[in-house]
This record gives sequence, C-alpha cells and structure tokens, in this order.
Amino acid sequence: MYKIDLNSDLGESFGAYTMGKDGQVLESVSSANVACGFHAGDPSVMVETVKMASSRGVAIGAHPGYPDLVGFGRRNLKCTPDQVYADCLYQIGALSAACRATGTSLQHVKPHGAMYNTAAKDLEMARAIAGAVKDGGDNLILMGLSGSLFQKAAEETGVPFASEAFADRAYMADGTLVPRSMEGAVIHDSDEAASRVVRMIKEGIVTTLSGEDIELRPQSICLHGDTAEAVEMSRELRNTLEAEGIEIANLREVLKL
Amino acid sequence: MYKIDLNSDLGESFGAYTMGKDGQVLESVSSANVACGFHAGDPSVMVETVKMASSRGVAIGAHPGYPDLVGFGRRNLKCTPDQVYADCLYQIGALSAACRATGTSLQHVKPHGAMYNTAAKDLEMARAIAGAVKDGGDNLILMGLSGSLFQKAAEETGVPFASEAFADRAYMADGTLVPRSMEGAVIHDSDEAASRVVRMIKEGIVTTLSGEDIELRPQSICLHGDTAEAVEMSRELRNTLEAEGIEIANLREVLKL
Amino acid sequence: MYKIDLNSDLGESFGAYTMGKDGQVLESVSSANVACGFHAGDPSVMVETVKMASSRGVAIGAHPGYPDLVGFGRRNLKCTPDQVYADCLYQIGALSAACRATGTSLQHVKPHGAMYNTAAKDLEMARAIAGAVKDGGDNLILMGLSGSLFQKAAEETGVPFASEAFADRAYMADGTLVPRSMEGAVIHDSDEAASRVVRMIKEGIVTTLSGEDIELRPQSICLHGDTAEAVEMSRELRNTLEAEGIEIANLREVLKL
Amino acid sequence: MYKIDLNSDLGESFGAYTMGKDGQVLESVSSANVACGFHAGDPSVMVETVKMASSRGVAIGAHPGYPDLVGFGRRNLKCTPDQVYADCLYQIGALSAACRATGTSLQHVKPHGAMYNTAAKDLEMARAIAGAVKDGGDNLILMGLSGSLFQKAAEETGVPFASEAFADRAYMADGTLVPRSMEGAVIHDSDEAASRVVRMIKEGIVTTLSGEDIELRPQSICLHGDTAEAVEMSRELRNTLEAEGIEIANLREVLKL
Repeated sequence: MYKIDLNSDLGESFGAYTMGKDGQVLESVSSANVACGFHAGDPSVMVETVKMASSRGVAIGAHPGYPDLVGFGRRNLKCTPDQVYADCLYQIGALSAACRATGTSLQHVKPHGAMYNTAAKDLEMARAIAGAVKDGGDNLILMGLSGSLFQKAAEETGVPFASEAFADRAYMADGTLVPRSMEGAVIHDSDEAASRVVRMIKEGIVTTLSGEDIELRPQSICLHGDTAEAVEMSRELRNTLEAEGIEIANLREVLKL
Repeated sequence: MYKIDLNSDLGESFGAYTMGKDGQVLESVSSANVACGFHAGDPSVMVETVKMASSRGVAIGAHPGYPDLVGFGRRNLKCTPDQVYADCLYQIGALSAACRATGTSLQHVKPHGAMYNTAAKDLEMARAIAGAVKDGGDNLILMGLSGSLFQKAAEETGVPFASEAFADRAYMADGTLVPRSMEGAVIHDSDEAASRVVRMIKEGIVTTLSGEDIELRPQSICLHGDTAEAVEMSRELRNTLEAEGIEIANLREVLKL
Repeated sequence: MYKIDLNSDLGESFGAYTMGKDGQVLESVSSANVACGFHAGDPSVMVETVKMASSRGVAIGAHPGYPDLVGFGRRNLKCTPDQVYADCLYQIGALSAACRATGTSLQHVKPHGAMYNTAAKDLEMARAIAGAVKDGGDNLILMGLSGSLFQKAAEETGVPFASEAFADRAYMADGTLVPRSMEGAVIHDSDEAASRVVRMIKEGIVTTLSGEDIELRPQSICLHGDTAEAVEMSRELRNTLEAEGIEIANLREVLKL
Repeated sequence: MYKIDLNSDLGESFGAYTMGKDGQVLESVSSANVACGFHAGDPSVMVETVKMASSRGVAIGAHPGYPDLVGFGRRNLKCTPDQVYADCLYQIGALSAACRATGTSLQHVKPHGAMYNTAAKDLEMARAIAGAVKDGGDNLILMGLSGSLFQKAAEETGVPFASEAFADRAYMADGTLVPRSMEGAVIHDSDEAASRVVRMIKEGIVTTLSGEDIELRPQSICLHGDTAEAVEMSRELRNTLEAEGIEIANLREVLKL
C-alpha cells in the first residue's frame, strides 16, 4: 500500500504576534515542523504547539532557522558550518525538551528558509546540519529537499533521510524547484497539484516545467498553512490522496523505522 | 567521609565578547553552571564550554536566566510562572543537546541572577522551575539557595534538591544572605571564608552576622570565576577542603543518587 | 472652541508579523504613538508607519518600551533610571530620524506598557523619561496618564505635558484607572464611552466607579486599533465629538505650542 | 599644511560585556565610530561613549551594522537595500539623540563589518546607506573605503564623502585591500605602517603588494583599539604624523566643510 507523510510549518507565532492557522493545518498533516525560537516561535509557543500537535497524533519535527527574527530566517546569513551545527543542536535540544514535557519525542528535523536553501546546495552546511541531527537526539530523521545535498550529507553522517516534495511548485529538469521569479513556478490549481502528487507517490515521476518526466519519489509532501487558500488546498490534497488509496502516515511509518 | 560539591557559573561569553576565566575555574570546581543563551552564552559557546568542562571531569548544569542579554539576567522581569516554566524547559533542553553531543548528560539546573533571587522567595516561581527540571530531563537535580523555597518546590515536585551555600557571603539569623547593601555582607578574607565552609560541612553550622550559630548543611559551595582574586580564592578553598580531608565530588556523588 | 487630540498606538508590526489595523485607525486619530523597535516595530515598519501617518496629516509620537519583544513590553523590567533614560533617548532618536526622512518631525513621546505604568507611579522613572524627552529632540511633548507623576516630572524637567484619558476605562475616586481585574473596569458601550469623553472635554469632569464626580481635563484621548470593534468605537467617538462641536486637533494645537 | 583625520571604532561594549580600550584609543584619534546597538553597543554604552569622546574633543560618527549581535556584524546578511536604508536610518537617529543629549552633533557615518564590505562593492547597497546618511541628519559625512562604490554613491546622493585608508593593511594594484587570507595582507611593523601613511598624506601614493605605486589620497586613517599592541601602534602613528608636520584634525576640518 502507498504511504506518504504530509508536513507543514507550525508554531510560528511569537509573543503577542500570531501567525498561521495551526489548528486547521493540523487536521491535514501527519508531521509538524515546529519553529524553535530563532526565526520564529518562542518557548511558550513551542510548548503549546507541541501539546496541540501531539494531542492530535501529529509527529513533531524541529524547524531550526538562522538567528534572524526580524527577517523570519528568510535572509541568508553567512555562518560557519560550526555555527550552523551549534545553532541547530541548540534548537533541536530546546524543542526536544518541549516534546519530553508533553510525553512525546522528536521525530525529525527540517531546516527553515534560508538555512534550508543554502544547505540544499552546500555540502559542508548540509553536513553540519546532519551532524546536529545525529548528535541532538535518538533516531532523528533529517528532512530535506528531494535530490539535494541533504540526502548525501545524511547518508555520510548515518542519519535517516526523508525527501520532501512540494505540491504547489514546478520542477526543473534537474529536479530542483523552479525559482519563484520564473513564470510557472507556482501551481495554483489544486486539482493539478493533487494529481501531480498522486503521480509522484504511485509512479515516482513528475513532469518538469519544460515537459519531460523525471524521477521524484518523496516521503513527505510540504503543505502551507499561512492563508485560508493554503489550508483549503491542504485539505483537498489530503482528501484526494485518501480517495486514491494512499495512506497518510508519519515519517517513521513511511520510512519503516 | 565528608563530601562537598563546588560549583561555579561558566560559559558566559557571547559571540565576540569573552567573560570569565573558565579554564582556571575548571581546575577548582566539580560542577559547572553553564549559561544557556538567554542572559549570557550562545550555542557555540555552550558546545565549547560543555566539551571543556566534560573533558576535565566536571559535571554540567544548566544555568537558565531571564531573556535579558543586555541586563545579564540580573534585572527582575515580571514573568508568569508559565513563561518561566517554558523558558527554563527551553534552556534545559538546549544545553542537554550540547551535553548529548559531547557524550555526557546534564546533572543539574541552577537558575541565574534575578530568576534565582525571585524564585527563592516565591513558591509559585520555584514550582515552575522545579516543574521544568522534572519535565526537561532524566534525574536532573535542582540546585538552589539553602533554606529557600526551592527546596520546598523540589520536594513537592519530586525532583532531587541540592542546597548551596556561599563561601564569601555572610548570613542573617534566618538563614538568608546578608544583602550586599549591608556592611559585612561579603567576606573578603579567604582564610575566614575557607574555615567557615569547613565548619558548614563538618558541623552543619554557620555563624551569622549578628553572632549566633545557625544550622546550614550545604551540598554545594558556590565559587566565583570572574576576577583573578576570585579564581585564587577558589583554588585556596579547594586546597583547604582537601587538606581537611573533605572530598570534592560532584552533586550525584554528594547526594548519593 | 473645544479641541481634543485623539491618539492611538501604531506601527506594532515586526518583520513578517503584522499587528493592528493601522490604516483604519489613522482615519480617526490626530496623533500616532509609533513603536520604536524595543517592544514592537522594526526600522522598516517605522519608516512605513511614519510615511503613512504623515501623509494623512497625523502627528507622530515615539512610543518607547522596555527591551522585551517577546513580552511586548508589557512585563515589568526592573531597570535603573539611567537605563530607562538611555533606552528612551535611543528610541526617540531612532524614530526622529524616520520622521526627518519623511519630511516631518516628532511631536511627542508616550511610554508604552509596563514602562508607562511603572513611571506613572514612580517619580524617578518619570523624571528619567522626561529627561530623555528634553534631551532627545526639540520641543517634544511628554504624553502620560492624567494626574500621574508624569505631569510632575514634566514640569520639573521643563517639557510640555499632555494628559491623556481613556474613553473605554472607568476611573477610581483618586483619578487612577480602575484595574482591569475589577468589575466595571472597561466600558463596553460606545455611546456611554463617547458621552463620558464629551463631558471630560466640555466640563472637565468624569464620574468614577463609586459614583462621585471628579475633575479630569485631558488633552488627548487614547483609542485602540487592535480589533474591528475598537476601530469602530474609535470612528463613532470621532463622529460624536465632531457632532458635539469639538475639534479634533493634534497635540501642538491643543496645547497651543 | 597637511591634515588628516584618525578614526577608530569605539563603544563596542554591551551590557555586562566590555570590549576595547576606549579610554586609551581616544588619546590618539580625532573621530570615533560609535557602535549603535545592532552589532555591538547598547543605549547606555552609547551615551557614555559619546560623553567620553566628546569631552576629549573627538568627533562622533555612527557605526551602523547588521542586526547580528552574536556575529558582531561580521557575517554577511542578505538584506534588501530598503532594509539596509531603514536599519542605518534607525541607528543614525539613535546615536544622534545621544549626541544631542551630550551637547554635540553627529559628524559622520561609517558602516561596520560585513555591511561595510558588502556596500563597498555593491552600488545599490552603497546608495541605500548614502540615502540614510542624507535623510538621517544635517550635513552628515559618509566615510568609506577609498576608491570604493561608497564614493560614487555619496556623489550621486549629494552627501560629502571621506575616504579612509588602513595603516596596517597592504593594497592590491586596483586599490582594494589585500584579503586577510593572503600572505602580506597585514603590516605588522609600526614604523613601516607609519611611513606608508605619511607618504599617502604627503604624496597621495601607496606601494602595492606587487610593488607598483598607485594613487591613494585618504582623508582619514583607520586605527584599531582592541589590543594593547594596536593602542601602542596608534599612539606611535600619531606621534610620527605630528613629527612630520601633519595636523590631526577631525573630518569637517579635513574636508573643509
């Protein structure tokens, strides 16, 4: 039987600032990437988010980012690999304690924003992150862009890797995402998005922007929860997948760990 | 045989800013209270500090503080107990990951500065911290001021408590520290400080500022490492204790855990 | 002719986080208290907010707070008067530059949250803030709670003072606000709120919670803009005031400076 | 008569953390670049630094940096020009208020660290900074690397430009600094450094690493104050310049503004 994990970023509120429709997104996903206080989130939000996700059976992942709250971790910050290692280790530990307090444990780590984009193409950074995943907890999974250097780094380091794909993004012939600046980068039609995901899961294939079919076998699909439209698209995708006989399961089940 | 733990605050450097004579202090102490990034310390400093302390056989404690870097955690910040709980849990987790990465594990938690002073007299705050100690890791010890509400909160919560005393501070008749604003609050003579500590350990007694003897049975003595004088005083105290046949041991050994 | 200033807190967004219905609130107020980056706001938000307010003829005030973003400046932080002076001076200067860049200049300073509440009752703190108002710019006005120590500190320091009252809050017999924890603290009926404000302006009198009439002669009325209800209440208040022949004018005009 | 400005970075302490030998450096320089709280410095340190510099007749400059305290502003942060503009405007304003409070006024703006290095080669960033210099105060001077895009941006924007050179750094044939990673990048001999500076001032020439003479006519020389050696080198340089009949004067005098 086909199985897939659905993940989304959660716990991005900070102090008096609220962000994201976490309650609604949790109805669709099997794994939550929880912000850890560097680019978003704060200690109290983290505890609440882990409680809420955990009580609905959603697995918890750490979502470490650069220490750039005002930039929401979206601006590249030229760190050394040692700094990225220590920053990730710190954030993984902080969220692990929230998990422990809630009676659950951390499932995975997915870097956020600029850290994700940089490390996907920079092996040294990917290794630093994989090292923090290995050192930061027991049996943690590193989640990253399919076909990126995250996978290579995870294999070298000896941590399980989960490859993620995007339902609403077009792909280049080399398996990378079409940059948002290019036309056709984002898929707005939710039916099209859903059928692309079904094909990835069942056939391991996606059609690129230029028309050819390439291999793409994700273990997780990234959903968005920042707008009402995104929440609705997530719900539809989940329904379509289930109607197609694809089971929504967390990463441990999909990876058979 | 008499046993006592010697603790000191370490890892208070931050980025390009250095603070404290950590390398020298580590020669005298058996337990290190490591700053966790809120009032001092940063993720890279934490990893380095844990490595350095651990390689010398010094046990690691978390030293959580208020989120007030510019005030070094010394200014009281009117948090709710839930905020203090979440902030401590976060910092305990972050340092635990640094311990795990270094092949060691966290021994204790000692709150810093204004958080320490507030919770020593505020049962709700002490309970919030004790709760974070319980939820944040396995078999963690809460270290706090002897005779303070930390002990009551630890007992209620079911976490082991280690009472600490100060070698260089005078005591009031009720067992509290003489406020620094009062004359005689600080003991400058290192011989006098050492003999007071020996008496606390062997007889469980200290003479207060007003002259009467009161009971004081610390499991740990707090040393300072911020100045050359403090480092020298720490070294002398350790030498005196060993000459008196008192074994310097970490908290687990002193508490027989 | 009767004149009154209407003020509201604006520019409280931060990075990717948005807060407040600034565009709508600007339709009702004559003075904007703009957050300065310590408890809310960031440099880019400040420039945008000043531009937006200024283009609608709304006067600009600095809204300095404690350096506590995660607590939104609502938690008391035990600073020294010198620290509060320097923190206010810094924030006043930062916003002044945004005003200068926009072709306008700063009108007033109104402290935020816990800093406001503390200084209203602590003369040393009120003096520190008044000192920063004097030193931070030309002819700045200090806005504070009517009847509070802000007024005394402003007079001592030689800076103009604007007293503010709250449309939606009940008053105690001594002229202080009824604490939110007490029943009757908040006035929910917008007609009642409006008629109370009209009476303050025309007669200089308000009826307290316990029923007696006391003197209250505000130069500014504080409005809220965080909810749709608050925005609507602000609009109604403005309409009522204008229908009563009361002119809405900024602080300089009300104080005849 | 020959005139030159000597500048150094000051006010880099933060809260309980001290950095730099400000008191000693002030004996050698005519202009101080004061950190503004983003990469170093805090509001209280800024007020104290401006007071100390001003009382010794040293002119004050703002030293804005990226919002990266833990990285000391040395790590590149991929900001937009609008963000850099707003961040500089904010920091310029904050320091201007400290100047105003001390009875002096801001002389110049010199960006710090990674912001300086990036903008020297990125015209859009240099323009953003020059824009903030123009909008942030009256008659402010932009100080930047000689021969860099700072000069072009200053001319376009209509702000006075002061070109700075480094006494202890070697130059490439194109007038840029030899990267620190290359051998010969740093000049350690203080006599050699001093005679190079004298030649820059009197002849407008410097010999590059590869041996040819190129034109270099700085208005200011950057000194360092972070180590005892740097302080000593600064003192010797000042003495040599004065013995050579070169007057040490602040930027306004050198630029005849």
